[in-house]
Amino acid sequence: MTTDAKKGSRDRLLEAAAALAYAEGVGVGVEALCRAAGVSKRSMYQLFESKDELLAASLKERAPAVTARLLPGADDTGSPRARMLHVFEQVEAQSAAPTYRGCPFLAVQVELKDPDHPASRVARAAKGELLDFFRGEAERGGASDPALLARQLVLVFDGISARAGVGAETPDGLLLPTVTTLLDAAGVR
Amino acid sequence: MTTDAKKGSRDRLLEAAAALAYAEGVGVGVEALCRAAGVSKRSMYQLFESKDELLAASLKERAPAVTARLLPGADDTGSPRARMLHVFEQVEAQSAAPTYRGCPFLAVQVELKDPDHPASRVARAAKGELLDFFRGEAERGGASDPALLARQLVLVFDGISARAGVGAETPDGLLLPTVTTLLDAAGVR
Repeated sequence: MTTDAKKGSRDRLLEAAAALAYAEGVGVGVEALCRAAGVSKRSMYQLFESKDELLAASLKERAPAVTARLLPGADDTGSPRARMLHVFEQVEAQSAAPTYRGCPFLAVQVELKDPDHPASRVARAAKGELLDFFRGEAERGGASDPALLARQLVLVFDGISARAGVGAETPDGLLLPTVTTLLDAAGVR
Repeated sequence: MTTDAKKGSRDRLLEAAAALAYAEGVGVGVEALCRAAGVSKRSMYQLFESKDELLAASLKERAPAVTARLLPGADDTGSPRARMLHVFEQVEAQSAAPTYRGCPFLAVQVELKDPDHPASRVARAAKGELLDFFRGEAERGGASDPALLARQLVLVFDGISARAGVGAETPDGLLLPTVTTLLDAAGVR
């Protein structure tokens, strides 16, 4: 393969792995991944050591965009409270899509059941960024216990992600009232 | 097979399916299930129409015991607040086990990604019992909005189940303070 062809195959495999793992689960087969990417299995194994490595790489590639769709933009000048609420407003909006299956980083970890799997490690690191964001805003917002508030918000984030992702719940009238209660209790006005 | 042999095979298959799906995920193969149960594939298909049906049946069989390990006993005379907190104290205790992978009903739904799968339906129904329990206690406890409080508590339940189940979080210093805050905000003393 030329360098360009390699890059094209690599990108298509990363995209197929992210899309299929999200829609169908990490159990998606190598054949299906290669078919969706239009890449031969031989080429796949030249680019990635294993399906596990492909999964991990696809999550890593995808993480910045997923995070960007949740956090306030660089030009945002809102209060810490508004910036934290922004994340949950995004979740509420995103969960309305019929293709919504919750947070991809949570789903991968639940499915793999192995914290040491390369994709679990990538997923945990991506989620760590969300925790750090909440922690920073909680500190700036004068939370009584910023570390606790940050953990609470990720707890609620993953709770709604899991429940709305499987169609057992919707955020309507639940998510923002819950987050507001926790922000109020922490003294973040 | 005699009726007794059938019952033995059926019980062993149900137990193997529950144990292996919990530890490894719903992708566990029919071969592995039959091997663990000591039952031939032929016998399995005489007892269950498909692996999907076996999965659903194993969750249904397991549900009463899982729920019983969470809810207060029939002889419990605690306040509604104490009875709701009891559930989370159980989660905290259970999550300390190295084999803990969170709520089996949540995991199955996240893994299957199909609300119409027979096992998803069973899992959703089992979770509905927990919601009903919280709703009833919230009403008895004078919550300002019992339906909202019940939804919030299941949200937190699934949040900690998912996060502790994948080893990303522990309930210590997080779960009970969060539940307490929500109970306080709802006016359940």
